[in-house]
Amino acid sequence: MYSATTKVRVRYGETDRMGYTYYGNYAQYYEIGRTDLMRQFGLTYRSFEDSGIILPVLTLNIKYIKPSYYDDLLTIKTTINNLPGIRIKFDYEIFNEQNELINIGDTTLVFVDEKTRNPRKPPEKFLKEIKKYFP
Amino acid sequence: MYSATTKVRVRYGETDRMGYTYYGNYAQYYEIGRTDLMRQFGLTYRSFEDSGIILPVLTLNIKYIKPSYYDDLLTIKTTINNLPGIRIKFDYEIFNEQNELINIGDTTLVFVDEKTRNPRKPPEKFLKEIKKYFP
Amino acid sequence: MYSATTKVRVRYGETDRMGYTYYGNYAQYYEIGRTDLMRQFGLTYRSFEDSGIILPVLTLNIKYIKPSYYDDLLTIKTTINNLPGIRIKFDYEIFNEQNELINIGDTTLVFVDEKTRNPRKPPEKFLKEIKKYFP
Amino acid sequence: MYSATTKVRVRYGETDRMGYTYYGNYAQYYEIGRTDLMRQFGLTYRSFEDSGIILPVLTLNIKYIKPSYYDDLLTIKTTINNLPGIRIKFDYEIFNEQNELINIGDTTLVFVDEKTRNPRKPPEKFLKEIKKYFP
Repeated sequence: MYSATTKVRVRYGETDRMGYTYYGNYAQYYEIGRTDLMRQFGLTYRSFEDSGIILPVLTLNIKYIKPSYYDDLLTIKTTINNLPGIRIKFDYEIFNEQNELINIGDTTLVFVDEKTRNPRKPPEKFLKEIKKYFP
Repeated sequence: MYSATTKVRVRYGETDRMGYTYYGNYAQYYEIGRTDLMRQFGLTYRSFEDSGIILPVLTLNIKYIKPSYYDDLLTIKTTINNLPGIRIKFDYEIFNEQNELINIGDTTLVFVDEKTRNPRKPPEKFLKEIKKYFP
Repeated sequence: MYSATTKVRVRYGETDRMGYTYYGNYAQYYEIGRTDLMRQFGLTYRSFEDSGIILPVLTLNIKYIKPSYYDDLLTIKTTINNLPGIRIKFDYEIFNEQNELINIGDTTLVFVDEKTRNPRKPPEKFLKEIKKYFP
Repeated sequence: MYSATTKVRVRYGETDRMGYTYYGNYAQYYEIGRTDLMRQFGLTYRSFEDSGIILPVLTLNIKYIKPSYYDDLLTIKTTINNLPGIRIKFDYEIFNEQNELINIGDTTLVFVDEKTRNPRKPPEKFLKEIKKYFP
């Protein structure tokens, strides 16, 4: 298991006329969560792409528990619960400033060769590092 | 069962550096789908809100089958499979111009009183109309 | 001079907690306007990119006269007032359903070679067509 | 004169298929800039709205000098050059990690009473504080 937390502040343009963060914007928050997880891990998502690997999303699931509002400083906890293979799954929990769990979800992504657009194994370096957390 | 289809063209700003429609933007396409379903039904989502009812989203699930690209003209098929109560579920299928199914998903929304922010029954008029499709 | 009009309906996720269309979203509406202008012209922006030309934006200016609201069906009038060279300028006027002018603006874009990322002349075919409107 | 700087990291969903940050997204960066300026000033934009004042945008002008890319950590410098009255103008400069100026722009906003939607003077407290910087 490997977890990382990151903060994101709700932007004005991310709210809707209900005054809530628009439901579609959580997908971006999740992406920030997994990007920062990888960064804290010593690898950037950009470095994946620069080495010819892209990571399209296969599935997205979100459960909205409570709304968030403009200017809220949210905490995103991102977790890898299973050793990644060709696919990698991230679980997310989002907390508001009162530390209430407001949102849970997950995404599954697939490692793809940018040129051929075929699935492929993750980079060796990444696999080697992540295996330490799944003894 | 009640179904409606609508068209949406992928905008430049909706693509990402993979050249695909960004995964988070499908939430907006789903919203367009259910909005147009209600419009074809003779009711607008705006009229709900104007009568003091809001419809926040409880769950969102998306399965990405194939990517879509800038300028693609997508067809969104939105279906209500169950008679709505306090909650209403919409199922979505998105097709590209080659009529390939590229994306499926669903959302569950809840009827909420704008003032009290408590769940409530759908408007009578809407219930009466929709019941015709669930004999 | 060459003008084209296109319609766009304001999406829920494009509004903000004021209930207005978020000010940043007009840039997308402008892009829809110029894309449709080129399409009505028999050329797609995608065909530019497929032939190795990209069109980054150099300047954007917007004047917000009146707000627009969720579900409004807006009319975007896009105009090329000057024969394009390496640069191409588009002027925009947006009207609401009451035919009130709610927004004016302009963008200047530059033709760039995708590989070298250097400015270049527009494609011959495009120049030839557009010249007919600037006798 | 009053200046503030803030950082923003370019999100994946903010890029487009050119690989650049989509031109419309700078409006959000500007909003983050002015929001953080007001926050460092001891006032939040949210507190304005909570006291019945909204701040719609009247004009937006952007000059794109260089592109930014996914994962770039940008610095936004926001400046108030003139004592605000009913209108308030913000100037922006955006720098990349190499400290290159990549983008300049400005926005003019107007203080509006949320109920009447008429222009009004800024809150006394804000005026008193900001006047210290325009002796």
